[in-house]
Amino acid sequence: MDERELRALLARVRDGEAPVEHAVARLKGAPFEAVGGFATVDTHRALRVGMPEVIFAQGKTAAQVAAIARKLDGHGPLLVTRLDPDKAAPARRAVKGAIYDPVSRTLRKGRMALPTRGPVAVCCAGTSDVPACEEAAVTLEVMGVEAVKVYDVGVAGIHRVLARRGDLDRCRAVIVAAGMEGALPSVVGGLVGRPVIGLPTSVGYGASFSGLTPLLAMLNSCSPNVTVVNIDNGFGAGFVAGLIARG
Amino acid sequence: MDERELRALLARVRDGEAPVEHAVARLKGAPFEAVGGFATVDTHRALRVGMPEVIFAQGKTAAQVAAIARKLDGHGPLLVTRLDPDKAAPARRAVKGAIYDPVSRTLRKGRMALPTRGPVAVCCAGTSDVPACEEAAVTLEVMGVEAVKVYDVGVAGIHRVLARRGDLDRCRAVIVAAGMEGALPSVVGGLVGRPVIGLPTSVGYGASFSGLTPLLAMLNSCSPNVTVVNIDNGFGAGFVAGLIARG
Amino acid sequence: MDERELRALLARVRDGEAPVEHAVARLKGAPFEAVGGFATVDTHRALRVGMPEVIFAQGKTAAQVAAIARKLDGHGPLLVTRLDPDKAAPARRAVKGAIYDPVSRTLRKGRMALPTRGPVAVCCAGTSDVPACEEAAVTLEVMGVEAVKVYDVGVAGIHRVLARRGDLDRCRAVIVAAGMEGALPSVVGGLVGRPVIGLPTSVGYGASFSGLTPLLAMLNSCSPNVTVVNIDNGFGAGFVAGLIARG
Amino acid sequence: MDERELRALLARVRDGEAPVEHAVARLKGAPFEAVGGFATVDTHRALRVGMPEVIFAQGKTAAQVAAIARKLDGHGPLLVTRLDPDKAAPARRAVKGAIYDPVSRTLRKGRMALPTRGPVAVCCAGTSDVPACEEAAVTLEVMGVEAVKVYDVGVAGIHRVLARRGDLDRCRAVIVAAGMEGALPSVVGGLVGRPVIGLPTSVGYGASFSGLTPLLAMLNSCSPNVTVVNIDNGFGAGFVAGLIARG
Amino acid sequence: MDERELRALLARVRDGEAPVEHAVARLKGAPFEAVGGFATVDTHRALRVGMPEVIFAQGKTAAQVAAIARKLDGHGPLLVTRLDPDKAAPARRAVKGAIYDPVSRTLRKGRMALPTRGPVAVCCAGTSDVPACEEAAVTLEVMGVEAVKVYDVGVAGIHRVLARRGDLDRCRAVIVAAGMEGALPSVVGGLVGRPVIGLPTSVGYGASFSGLTPLLAMLNSCSPNVTVVNIDNGFGAGFVAGLIARG
Amino acid sequence: MDERELRALLARVRDGEAPVEHAVARLKGAPFEAVGGFATVDTHRALRVGMPEVIFAQGKTAAQVAAIARKLDGHGPLLVTRLDPDKAAPARRAVKGAIYDPVSRTLRKGRMALPTRGPVAVCCAGTSDVPACEEAAVTLEVMGVEAVKVYDVGVAGIHRVLARRGDLDRCRAVIVAAGMEGALPSVVGGLVGRPVIGLPTSVGYGASFSGLTPLLAMLNSCSPNVTVVNIDNGFGAGFVAGLIARG
Amino acid sequence: MDERELRALLARVRDGEAPVEHAVARLKGAPFEAVGGFATVDTHRALRVGMPEVIFAQGKTAAQVAAIARKLDGHGPLLVTRLDPDKAAPARRAVKGAIYDPVSRTLRKGRMALPTRGPVAVCCAGTSDVPACEEAAVTLEVMGVEAVKVYDVGVAGIHRVLARRGDLDRCRAVIVAAGMEGALPSVVGGLVGRPVIGLPTSVGYGASFSGLTPLLAMLNSCSPNVTVVNIDNGFGAGFVAGLIARG
Amino acid sequence: MDERELRALLARVRDGEAPVEHAVARLKGAPFEAVGGFATVDTHRALRVGMPEVIFAQGKTAAQVAAIARKLDGHGPLLVTRLDPDKAAPARRAVKGAIYDPVSRTLRKGRMALPTRGPVAVCCAGTSDVPACEEAAVTLEVMGVEAVKVYDVGVAGIHRVLARRGDLDRCRAVIVAAGMEGALPSVVGGLVGRPVIGLPTSVGYGASFSGLTPLLAMLNSCSPNVTVVNIDNGFGAGFVAGLIARG
Repeated sequence: MDERELRALLARVRDGEAPVEHAVARLKGAPFEAVGGFATVDTHRALRVGMPEVIFAQGKTAAQVAAIARKLDGHGPLLVTRLDPDKAAPARRAVKGAIYDPVSRTLRKGRMALPTRGPVAVCCAGTSDVPACEEAAVTLEVMGVEAVKVYDVGVAGIHRVLARRGDLDRCRAVIVAAGMEGALPSVVGGLVGRPVIGLPTSVGYGASFSGLTPLLAMLNSCSPNVTVVNIDNGFGAGFVAGLIARG
Repeated sequence: MDERELRALLARVRDGEAPVEHAVARLKGAPFEAVGGFATVDTHRALRVGMPEVIFAQGKTAAQVAAIARKLDGHGPLLVTRLDPDKAAPARRAVKGAIYDPVSRTLRKGRMALPTRGPVAVCCAGTSDVPACEEAAVTLEVMGVEAVKVYDVGVAGIHRVLARRGDLDRCRAVIVAAGMEGALPSVVGGLVGRPVIGLPTSVGYGASFSGLTPLLAMLNSCSPNVTVVNIDNGFGAGFVAGLIARG
Repeated sequence: MDERELRALLARVRDGEAPVEHAVARLKGAPFEAVGGFATVDTHRALRVGMPEVIFAQGKTAAQVAAIARKLDGHGPLLVTRLDPDKAAPARRAVKGAIYDPVSRTLRKGRMALPTRGPVAVCCAGTSDVPACEEAAVTLEVMGVEAVKVYDVGVAGIHRVLARRGDLDRCRAVIVAAGMEGALPSVVGGLVGRPVIGLPTSVGYGASFSGLTPLLAMLNSCSPNVTVVNIDNGFGAGFVAGLIARG
Repeated sequence: MDERELRALLARVRDGEAPVEHAVARLKGAPFEAVGGFATVDTHRALRVGMPEVIFAQGKTAAQVAAIARKLDGHGPLLVTRLDPDKAAPARRAVKGAIYDPVSRTLRKGRMALPTRGPVAVCCAGTSDVPACEEAAVTLEVMGVEAVKVYDVGVAGIHRVLARRGDLDRCRAVIVAAGMEGALPSVVGGLVGRPVIGLPTSVGYGASFSGLTPLLAMLNSCSPNVTVVNIDNGFGAGFVAGLIARG
Repeated sequence: MDERELRALLARVRDGEAPVEHAVARLKGAPFEAVGGFATVDTHRALRVGMPEVIFAQGKTAAQVAAIARKLDGHGPLLVTRLDPDKAAPARRAVKGAIYDPVSRTLRKGRMALPTRGPVAVCCAGTSDVPACEEAAVTLEVMGVEAVKVYDVGVAGIHRVLARRGDLDRCRAVIVAAGMEGALPSVVGGLVGRPVIGLPTSVGYGASFSGLTPLLAMLNSCSPNVTVVNIDNGFGAGFVAGLIARG
Repeated sequence: MDERELRALLARVRDGEAPVEHAVARLKGAPFEAVGGFATVDTHRALRVGMPEVIFAQGKTAAQVAAIARKLDGHGPLLVTRLDPDKAAPARRAVKGAIYDPVSRTLRKGRMALPTRGPVAVCCAGTSDVPACEEAAVTLEVMGVEAVKVYDVGVAGIHRVLARRGDLDRCRAVIVAAGMEGALPSVVGGLVGRPVIGLPTSVGYGASFSGLTPLLAMLNSCSPNVTVVNIDNGFGAGFVAGLIARG
Repeated sequence: MDERELRALLARVRDGEAPVEHAVARLKGAPFEAVGGFATVDTHRALRVGMPEVIFAQGKTAAQVAAIARKLDGHGPLLVTRLDPDKAAPARRAVKGAIYDPVSRTLRKGRMALPTRGPVAVCCAGTSDVPACEEAAVTLEVMGVEAVKVYDVGVAGIHRVLARRGDLDRCRAVIVAAGMEGALPSVVGGLVGRPVIGLPTSVGYGASFSGLTPLLAMLNSCSPNVTVVNIDNGFGAGFVAGLIARG
Repeated sequence: MDERELRALLARVRDGEAPVEHAVARLKGAPFEAVGGFATVDTHRALRVGMPEVIFAQGKTAAQVAAIARKLDGHGPLLVTRLDPDKAAPARRAVKGAIYDPVSRTLRKGRMALPTRGPVAVCCAGTSDVPACEEAAVTLEVMGVEAVKVYDVGVAGIHRVLARRGDLDRCRAVIVAAGMEGALPSVVGGLVGRPVIGLPTSVGYGASFSGLTPLLAMLNSCSPNVTVVNIDNGFGAGFVAGLIARG
């Protein structure tokens, strides 16, 4: 509620057009609801940030996930991330029509119907990075944005990504997932005039330190159009790319 | 034993009121007891620091926990922390009337009856932080201090914690648990004029490094009323908050 | 403003007792003031957290510090921290009556006059930790809380701190500064029934990593009454101890 | 050169319209020029990524910076970053009409004239973060994008940023700089439906580890619209925000 | 394709000897093939870097490994690394004649028949380093290079490696695997006039940090003929040593 | 072989008393034996460093441990460390009369019969540190040195260790194991005039980082008689203490 | 004071031979003295740990060092470490007869006259490690222990240290300083049957991380007679070696 | 001395052709010389590892460097690295004919005249990496190996390095220096069939952590022909590349 709305509301109170109780309700606000003593669901998030609250299942019990999903069901599209196959059943039962995908470990239902300015490319350096990419792709789908997949095009065979430049050029944003040395976002960043979202993955061993190395590499990219999300955070990468692609 | 007591004791020795052996015993002291060759129980801890020795079960065998609990039983309230469900049975049998709680992984019996100046708020950013909060809440209960729970009010929906300011303001201290980026203690610290105890949790993934990130964030809080305990250390947070709340 | 106040204000608007503009001003709030394009001074902080905004001089120019200090002067006691001697002059000129102390690198003026429940002990392990302690002591002085200094009583000569137990016991909170291995807070924590605030310092070399080692040590203290502040953060330690000592 | 262009070129060779040498030159390409044995200037970068090569002055001698700047002068707007005042003179002499700004440590000349969809907000938590913000603002200016400055609105006084929501809401992207615990991007991310670019700064001390703490915090943000750039990388933040704001 | 080939191709187009479509195909290139939507196999790698693409099985499903192996089978020798025994069966079925070795966790078939200048020594400090050495030895075998094994000759009994100097001296390169303090490469580096490839292993505990310590030690070797590969990267060590040994 | 022996040997060659082959054998030396292709047992280690080679079982297969143990059996006392219960059986069968202890995870047989100057104290801060202490105690036993156990005397109850000063004072060296903040070695170091060997353990959680914190703390001890071994390295601590205690 | 002395003292009180005040003084103890408000000198340290308190000058002002040195002068040998040349003058004036050495940065006066069992070897890998070695050598001299210097014998030329085995073998303990990869202590540890004290130095660059790498390497030594002190801690290494060498 | 030589020497002793003293001298060996008490020059290093001892000047005084250089002068080519301009004069005076280069900070004299199999490419990503490359190039020159310089061809403009493939292909080894994200070695490694030596540099800021990021990136390269040297270790990179290029 901005000042203009505030003045209007108060004027209506003054003029008797709005009862005090109405104004109290508006001004007190309460854009959240308690669930089961363990959650405070943010019911106005779509209004503020353009997408309803997404349920991060890791660290929650299957019952907690199901309860929160049931509360959110019907208030726009639903997305649950990091939902392991063995915890998915209660939430699937709770939300009729929800689709579970074991590769991206997501449960989803519905999609937003906002206009977009173009697709988003989702690239990765190797086959092992596919799950993080699929989490991003599912997120984009829920947001109503087309995902163009460009998989297994790492820098050890640089011609593979160069051959896909046409696909990259027609997108509004490019997500680039990579583990190991995390070099691909810099190369892609040097090829396209769009925001590149570096998505470091935990693919690797030894001195990759579970994704720390590609994370650091992407943060130090010599291509200045690269920004970075957390290791394996396909959802965040997809969400930001979706926001950029929107009209 | 302070100097005054020392003078008195020595005077009684001089005057023949106390035999030398008695004074030797007093002066040698021995405020501890050996248990089973593997433990030296600190039996005077309540006198010194306001609460009997609490048993940290992690790294101990179920039999060791039970033996130490049996020794401490009857000398004030009893608290065992980090007691996994599959190790709890022997200690429960050893201490009649003890209550085991699987969420906080605590075993407890009795509570202190000291006067307090008010309640302590126990807040957390997300549902996954609840176990650490419950460990703090159980500790407060054993200390005889009321805990006001304010759960799942993270900064991505800042209105949730703003809506609970009344609850925060009536407390003598505020515990704020958070994983991921650990931002909530700084926000709460800017809202209340009480000590805020930052309780970083291991909730998160990738660059949260099992709680290192919220730990560092809380240590660098721009709100100067924030102090910090170890990652997932709900007991420590509850204990210090309880000391502050005491009369 | 809580709901009760809100209802009252709105009722006065409805009843014509308060003009809309008055309510707009109240509801819009503006508890801050811009200074020179580079600062937004939080003028209501004392109301919220019990002490006016304190100026952290590090990273600010001498002119910026002086401008902010001039703005805050007269709204309660003033405290500037991390003010190097060569940057102090403009602020001293800007605030008549301010006292600069080169050991703690603070500039201060005035003190709060709130009731306290007792003094705070400020201990340190070695002579090199004195500057951090003095920053804490100056903060306590500005808050109107007595500081009891117990300096250079590190654990390599454990009898030194044992000899000062009487001083520790009469305090409401104990600040313990230490560099190197940071062991003193654990020892003190085992001696007193009060909150102990561990203040790690950057005193040391090699594997102390500029204070990381005592910081980690204090976070892992086996004495559960220890909470921790940032390395060399004497101000934060003093501020929290002062809040605990207040009535 | 895409396939369509390639077919056309080859057809012209076949038809004798283009000599072989011409096609060799086109196909060999050479979109770069050597400068003084130490640099290979990427002269086609504006075509690929939407902005000419920007000169990162750190680690280069003043003479090298000047030589590269002279080479780039006249091929679109010019921007030099990380140019310390004592190294700026030769480059200023080399590029007639260039403007040096000591706060952002930038040298610039000209600006792009592309259409934009709206302004970009540049926020910071504290006064010490201003230089990083100014680097971002200068970058936006060179890209022809309006910057809305929202400075010193850190979370210890959360009402300050809440009061500026109107400014945030009208922007296409939001840059949020913060040192210390780096909490502000999460809070802003929860308020707006636009991409938020977290810009961690090296402001802080002790356990901030020269910006590592806010960097980690931002990467773990619970607000999914936050992506992150390197510590103190105002240029990168500005560049990506500018790309997002473009039509 | 180098410039000389390019001129020749274009001349043939000009002279009508090569149709445009042929040149398009050559110039577009496509030295890769998609496999199952999850992989883009680099089929020209042997031409570029002297060995066909090697399949890194970690992070891939058994089915993915088998599908890629089937695609590569018949295009030179085949090597799969990091293939755990429980994932090996499908790939063995897919590639007739392949040999699986559980110690090195490799699947291989065929060997290159290029001339070599001499053997490669594969040394290790302790028995626990043998698996990494065997991965190197299998790689050398596939490359057609003889491996001379010098196992369990760590520096705590320095005479053991001194006694094998003759074996070291006749090799073209020396691989030295070590965990714990990683000292052996420095000692060997001081004995031979050949490139030494330090292969840190994750053997150790505590402050070895899963191989970080020997990795750092080898990087800081006072013997300047030591270069280093990733922790446990026997394949990389073997591959580089094989390249050095080639004619 | 020192110079004196060398002169004597050569004189005997010159005088025909020793055949050339004999001298070759002496001078070539071969104080080791190969075992099963995977080990090179250092059979002269007792002569050089005062104790036969000790078998570190971690990372070796049960069969490898048994084979090496069989080879060493009969050449002085035998000690196997880090031998998990489920791998112990083959080695027990291989070495008749060997004793397996599951707490210290050691297998041992025999003991050295060298004179010693006194016992060694083995202290620990908590019950969870007992396994590391027992590894040290078993090592001392094999070396023929008496171990005085002082367990569970951590600094949170400082009177416990002060009460055992008599035990500490009669020892030639003191091993002090501690996890968490690792403070006990500093306190003990300030009480005794003997070398103190700090033995950090992985006991703790969160910011103890698996023993990194007590390791760092002990390295920074303000008591200069403290040296440090690797985390959980009870064997190393016991071995060095045993060397110090020897005559 | 042990129990025997305590009984005697109390008997004398009982028998009127000692007045109460005398016993109070004895039992209260006070084995320390305050200096200038910033130091609490531990005057009984020589009785407890075998050497008077040593002054660590780093982080103290020249005036503080001088004041403490003056207080300690005359109570046994005096040693000041880490005393930079530009801070040495006041302390030299304060302590008549003190000798300042700029290489080891020590000030010393007098030496202990206790019997020793033999010399201590002080080795280093390179010329740059000499200052740390000299700090150790001066410490040994003050303790009255002979130091045998074996400098610049690093593992890149392993024959150099092998040639000095005779020198090593006649010592009671061996200090081995090394920077870079820190391999020398392991090699020396494999040659001698004495305690080896690893002294990591900050010599190196890049991935030596100011001595972290040799520190970690030494902690992971495969030679079990190696214990470790802090980076550049020549004093600690010398002190422990001196204690071992004592009778 | 190998076994064959040993037999021959002993036969000559037996036959009276060689006096015992001669054999003692040979067998005792002494392939080093003491310099000024602070250095033990390894005079046989060229025989063992193919290049005389190189003087690492960092951490040595100018006088020490000069003394060691004078000792080595005349025993093959001389190379001093890390010699800052202000320390170079004494060494230049000590070694007649030596050439000092301020960019690479080297002093050199003479070059080896061994046959080589081809040149070595020295590439770098940016202009700021040139000093490390020049150190490598000078080392190659002293070894008598041609260096082909390919500078400022970083991955943000990938066409630059692709355009230099001809230069890379004719080399026997490729050194690739890069700071920031260190991606270039992976790209080059995918283009050539030669060993690639990754040379991470400290060029960058923030999360590059003084070269840690490119170091980690190169260690995790997906191109298996990449090995890595220490940060800024141009000498080591040049030395190994030179060994590979030799016949």
